[in-house]
Amino acid sequence: MSDPEGFQKVSEDAHRSNEAVNSNPYGPNPADFLSNVSNFQLIESTLREGEQFANAFFSTEKKIEIAKALDEFGVDYIELTSPVASEQSRKDCEAICKLGLKAKILTHIRCHMDDARVAVETGVDGVDVVIGTSQFLRQFSHGKDMNYIAESAVEVIEFVKSKGIEIRFSSEDSFRSDLVDLLNIYKTVDKIGVNRVGIADTVGCANPRQVYELVRTLKSVVHCDIECHFHNDTGCAIANAYTALEGGARLIDVSVLGIGERNGITPLGGLMARMVAADRDYVLSKYKLHKLRDLENLVAEAVQVNIPFNNPITGFCAFTHKAGIHAKAILANPSTYEILSPADFGLTRYIHFANRLTGWNAIKSRVDQLNLHLSDEQCKEVTNKIKKLGDVRQLTIDDVDSIIKDFHADISTPHVRPTEPVPHVIEGLEESEVKRPKN
Amino acid sequence: MSDPEGFQKVSEDAHRSNEAVNSNPYGPNPADFLSNVSNFQLIESTLREGEQFANAFFSTEKKIEIAKALDEFGVDYIELTSPVASEQSRKDCEAICKLGLKAKILTHIRCHMDDARVAVETGVDGVDVVIGTSQFLRQFSHGKDMNYIAESAVEVIEFVKSKGIEIRFSSEDSFRSDLVDLLNIYKTVDKIGVNRVGIADTVGCANPRQVYELVRTLKSVVHCDIECHFHNDTGCAIANAYTALEGGARLIDVSVLGIGERNGITPLGGLMARMVAADRDYVLSKYKLHKLRDLENLVAEAVQVNIPFNNPITGFCAFTHKAGIHAKAILANPSTYEILSPADFGLTRYIHFANRLTGWNAIKSRVDQLNLHLSDEQCKEVTNKIKKLGDVRQLTIDDVDSIIKDFHADISTPHVRPTEPVPHVIEGLEESEVKRPKN
Repeated sequence: MSDPEGFQKVSEDAHRSNEAVNSNPYGPNPADFLSNVSNFQLIESTLREGEQFANAFFSTEKKIEIAKALDEFGVDYIELTSPVASEQSRKDCEAICKLGLKAKILTHIRCHMDDARVAVETGVDGVDVVIGTSQFLRQFSHGKDMNYIAESAVEVIEFVKSKGIEIRFSSEDSFRSDLVDLLNIYKTVDKIGVNRVGIADTVGCANPRQVYELVRTLKSVVHCDIECHFHNDTGCAIANAYTALEGGARLIDVSVLGIGERNGITPLGGLMARMVAADRDYVLSKYKLHKLRDLENLVAEAVQVNIPFNNPITGFCAFTHKAGIHAKAILANPSTYEILSPADFGLTRYIHFANRLTGWNAIKSRVDQLNLHLSDEQCKEVTNKIKKLGDVRQLTIDDVDSIIKDFHADISTPHVRPTEPVPHVIEGLEESEVKRPKN
Repeated sequence: MSDPEGFQKVSEDAHRSNEAVNSNPYGPNPADFLSNVSNFQLIESTLREGEQFANAFFSTEKKIEIAKALDEFGVDYIELTSPVASEQSRKDCEAICKLGLKAKILTHIRCHMDDARVAVETGVDGVDVVIGTSQFLRQFSHGKDMNYIAESAVEVIEFVKSKGIEIRFSSEDSFRSDLVDLLNIYKTVDKIGVNRVGIADTVGCANPRQVYELVRTLKSVVHCDIECHFHNDTGCAIANAYTALEGGARLIDVSVLGIGERNGITPLGGLMARMVAADRDYVLSKYKLHKLRDLENLVAEAVQVNIPFNNPITGFCAFTHKAGIHAKAILANPSTYEILSPADFGLTRYIHFANRLTGWNAIKSRVDQLNLHLSDEQCKEVTNKIKKLGDVRQLTIDDVDSIIKDFHADISTPHVRPTEPVPHVIEGLEESEVKRPKN
């Protein structure tokens, strides 16, 4: 990320986000016996769900490059498109299985023996099966009833298990399925030894308290791990994933930048932001967070999108502080206005000082960077001049620097230079202290 | 939004999202006496919080244009930058108050009489005051103790009330403040007749279950309305807002595209997506959702950012369906894979058919659009040819259309044309039905 106009790079202090979390009276409760917030795993689905993103077309070489980058980041599982989706999908699946990655390789199929027979021959470590259980999908998609679904599931699960690889059974559109139907089928597949059961918010309708209730209920019914998959249509995919972990889910489906059907699923980077805020030590022990930005750039380029301006962590302003009252406190202690440390992600913090909302603490910091010497009173005075010009037009760093340098020259050589006002500065601001509250 | 390559416009059917919500066993519970999900209000802060976005510099004309557009959308309150932030900020505040908008105009100040005296003279309908209550802000920002905070609050509140305008008192960084301190001060200001108390997740550290607990607790302590303000550093700002309403909060702070300090706050559009999924009738009765896209474009242009590719509702792929199994079901009934109706926002749905994951239902729909006549079997056959080429390279609509047209010409005039294969199509796909599961 290049330095945009008007930003000031600040040296990184020891960050106290963990202390901040620990002092939070409403923070994660270690006594919550259901929670897997400090014991979660990632199923990375950029090469499956992500391939369903409108702009995605991954060549074999690009798939391998992405799989290797995900493996280096440290994801626990990599999920691939079904080998029966197309001939090339099958070949790519086999090629990725042969890479010898640390991450386990999964493929994702319909709950059908035709698909399962192909999947188990690809060399994957596990198979994720899914079938629609909601009234909508049963009526308008596959047209099967719950008995048929249960019979198919048992047949496919026992077949995949006989090959000695992992098997997950997931319902589709779980939050619009009948609760009793869901619990019945999950209990059935758990009894015959499925490795994981999956809950999927296929349409993005779920909200956090629903998620917590459903996961907690399911947790009381099955012994295997619970995996969750959340679409982001109503903007809750990260929060739903976090709440699912609180309720006892163990694995979360993610993709880089959240790419997938429609506006996608839980994004890897956004979930990392959430989880670092909850348990920084666990996340740092498992995942190479400083590789996040390169990973996002790799995928963004492959699918021809820009990193959203407001992306968690890597958005261009995620660690930029602008209001004067913020800048003052951040300069004293970054934890005042940051729950995440940019250094954890190999990034840096910026104090935006070239604007009308700036304060004298931010300007003083810039004066120090320019290696000039001004008293606090003088910094307040020059800040007034800067804010006054900032009221008239958008400021650049050069504007601010030249106002500061002219001011400094004025007070340093009062009898040599004429005492006329600094160019472009309009008289009249009555206050030097920062005047802008913030929450 | 122009039609991107490979997308197919589908005519809008009556959407059944409300029925979907009503049939959801985990949906909003009308018997939940705390919930304001069906009784919420919006405090729109693009012209206050949004002005703290790194790229924001709003001229007076642009502020007025945005204020008018927000008013037309139907927001309940418009919040403006403090009149003491700069001379121009004060003049702009006065100018917007004189517009005679339906929305109430607020300004946002520090909890200090110097600020309050200026604010009440601007013509606003109400004043939002804020003060930091966390240990971080008390130590590194203003350095005041809770007694001082309470005394200032009482003085400012009584002064503003004496002017006959609304007054809100908010803590800052509420989720890292001491619970007893918070409840004490909220109880104090409630007793002297504040209109609203505010909870602010200033650093974006809160998660939904914390929010629910804090709001519910506060609800038992105060009689006035509760307003919430959530930053989005860990991607939970929309979910936290929704959960706050479930816990009894009444008002949510939003900005267009969520612009604000760092990566911003709860976005107006994202919250609308969430609330339409929860109570479509209430939202449609209050807000002009078909103005959302223009409003977002106006602000995006003013602060020089692009609409994020994955933005709820207006992101370029929010209503695009790609996997074959999705396309099939969507063509039968949009509610199968959509919780929101694009028509509610003046938008349209797209079925992405020009890719290797396509299915014969999507292709059949395209054949119909081209006004050609093929049987289901013939559609499956031509779909195989399209998927085969899609395995080799990215497809355009023209590619698909020419394959379909060649195929149609072949079968329509078998004895006139030579029976050679369709150009660019490689032999070998063995199945015609869609093979790609999805969740």
